[in-house]
Amino acid sequence: MQASIRISREEHRERQRALAGRLQEQQLSGAVLFDNHYVLYYTGFAFIPTERPIAFVIDRQAEAALFVPRLEVEHAQGSAVVDRVEHYEEYPGRQHPISGLAGLLEDMGVADRIGIDTDGYPWILGYQGPSLSDVTAAEVIPLAAFVESQMAIKSAAEVALLQESAKWGNLAHRLLQRYTLPGITETEVSQRASQEATMAMVEALGPLYRAQSIFSTGASAGYRGQIGRGGALPHALSSNATFMAGDVIVTGAGAPLWGYHSELERTMAIGPASAAQARFFGHMVAVQEVALQALRPGALCSDVDSAVRAYYQEHDLMPYWRHHTGHAIGLRYHEGPFLDSGDHTPIVPGMVFTVEPGLYAEDLGGFRHSDTVLITEDGPQMITYYPRDLASLTIPV
Amino acid sequence: MQASIRISREEHRERQRALAGRLQEQQLSGAVLFDNHYVLYYTGFAFIPTERPIAFVIDRQAEAALFVPRLEVEHAQGSAVVDRVEHYEEYPGRQHPISGLAGLLEDMGVADRIGIDTDGYPWILGYQGPSLSDVTAAEVIPLAAFVESQMAIKSAAEVALLQESAKWGNLAHRLLQRYTLPGITETEVSQRASQEATMAMVEALGPLYRAQSIFSTGASAGYRGQIGRGGALPHALSSNATFMAGDVIVTGAGAPLWGYHSELERTMAIGPASAAQARFFGHMVAVQEVALQALRPGALCSDVDSAVRAYYQEHDLMPYWRHHTGHAIGLRYHEGPFLDSGDHTPIVPGMVFTVEPGLYAEDLGGFRHSDTVLITEDGPQMITYYPRDLASLTIPV
Repeated sequence: MQASIRISREEHRERQRALAGRLQEQQLSGAVLFDNHYVLYYTGFAFIPTERPIAFVIDRQAEAALFVPRLEVEHAQGSAVVDRVEHYEEYPGRQHPISGLAGLLEDMGVADRIGIDTDGYPWILGYQGPSLSDVTAAEVIPLAAFVESQMAIKSAAEVALLQESAKWGNLAHRLLQRYTLPGITETEVSQRASQEATMAMVEALGPLYRAQSIFSTGASAGYRGQIGRGGALPHALSSNATFMAGDVIVTGAGAPLWGYHSELERTMAIGPASAAQARFFGHMVAVQEVALQALRPGALCSDVDSAVRAYYQEHDLMPYWRHHTGHAIGLRYHEGPFLDSGDHTPIVPGMVFTVEPGLYAEDLGGFRHSDTVLITEDGPQMITYYPRDLASLTIPV
Repeated sequence: MQASIRISREEHRERQRALAGRLQEQQLSGAVLFDNHYVLYYTGFAFIPTERPIAFVIDRQAEAALFVPRLEVEHAQGSAVVDRVEHYEEYPGRQHPISGLAGLLEDMGVADRIGIDTDGYPWILGYQGPSLSDVTAAEVIPLAAFVESQMAIKSAAEVALLQESAKWGNLAHRLLQRYTLPGITETEVSQRASQEATMAMVEALGPLYRAQSIFSTGASAGYRGQIGRGGALPHALSSNATFMAGDVIVTGAGAPLWGYHSELERTMAIGPASAAQARFFGHMVAVQEVALQALRPGALCSDVDSAVRAYYQEHDLMPYWRHHTGHAIGLRYHEGPFLDSGDHTPIVPGMVFTVEPGLYAEDLGGFRHSDTVLITEDGPQMITYYPRDLASLTIPV
């Protein structure tokens, strides 16, 4: 048998059986899921979402089908873990795809009460069409919350993929730090680091590696415009800024593996940090430590964020607060549950979170580390492992 | 005034006024749009979609607001063309964001009949929440079809951005062709071509350039796994294949500029094409020509696809048919209307389509050129301009 680091067929079947078990509990005849991450989760089929609907259909006996346009038939047959692949010609086509889907549901005995993520394919990328409930006359029951809760508990194989992702993100970040210098632009540094890390990754892993992502085909690291004063915007987009001595900068690095993403972000200083910058950096590291200490099985997600907020309040830092502590991560770059004061989900082993409280000041820039952390019986276990201290993250000038 | 190639504030206001006119016609009190491309289209605000809802709100007098999480406030204030930016703390937050949105709607007098794209923020990336109609008790009226039809007619400024995009896609493709050789992997060639084209682009355009895309920060060209037999899958994902003499390969190149995308795809041969490959290549070019001839104002989208299908049938090529002729393109990589037998939208000047009929054979691979084409009063005008003939697209070995 060939070496492999991907999710096995058997694990995809287990996921499907767990979903079918839920259908039985809720007395549903079956489920129809359109979200491309849900399709990937249950079948291993990664695809480019377009105006052409793709649906995963499962009945309560766990018979699984994929409904695809003609152009994806061979692709789906080659990679999806399902019992059957059915197709329609094209969207909008001479016959609207949703009527073909209705036919498949009838054939599978999925009628009456159907679990769904969205009531019909969402109107994305130009798609327009009727709801599933209109077409089938069935009662549709929201199932996304269950799917999200199933995805939130990672298996050993999923954790291994996240750990592998973190390795290559670490390499990309190491190169990013090495190439970042005053006078160079973020685009140049980011492209060089990402290219070299990607080549190392694809050559090292060879046939073991597929990205299965529409965002990236290898490792990447960059700044997304979070440079100097631009770093005060937590979700800026790239602006090709030029690095200057005295800048505080916020990075991001990762690598999709079979669709799984880790997240590594670091705050770095170009040249010695000023006293004010060092003070903010120190608070940022301290409050991340507060979050890590609070991140234990049995606590609620909201407990972690409340502990973090208490730190901000205690140190008069609320003017620099912009967002919650973190989010779950896995097949998507953001997943629920959230380390947020309003999310009272209990933290259990197998969950994976980013831990990334930040401070943002208009005159100083942004201060945020993000680490990807696995919850174990014994507490949090770091999946990312890049240095966090200011000395290690100061670029000599 | 600084040189600029982006969409002007005034053009964003015109778009908003056109939408407000529609609200008046339909006797709606206002509109709420969540789709990130719709927000970008009406306000110029590009952002990374997450679990945190962002909404564009407009009333029938064209007063426009953006509703964002705390972390996007300064970002939105700095770049969105709106009259006001309102925010909520966080998602899920101690108070669910949708109640803040309901308050904003009440304050703006947007009640009773509200135009929407989706009834509440879609359940993406872990977001969960009630529908807008549940929260406001208003009647919600679908408005996405109108928005799509407004976006389908490109202004002079939009066409200029697509033309600029095509230039840099052309450069990336030129480099991709130059570096593609037997024994090299697709990742290596794609990364090198994309990096060099991106550096040229960002250095040439300087401050005129922002990508405003979550997919790419510059020009890119690659293969997406469509190499040799892998090319028989029209929507494959990258597999880091190694080029071999005798392969037929399908490329893709482009560059987002202020959110606008062109599309350039070419079929190339590594070494002299076999007789069978040359025959398929010839049919592919001929059927693209059939499509271009049919693509005129006054025709229907379906007329173009029907002419294309007639060619396939006449030459016994339907076993190799996989998808419709093309799609509109602009702020999204796929937009409606579609050059599809089932889409009877009349073709009018200002529309921009990809024209990309393809042939796919399991033993030979894929054959598809894609060009981005503007509809003018006088017929189609090519926005992409890379050579299309086999001699120009044969890589010497």
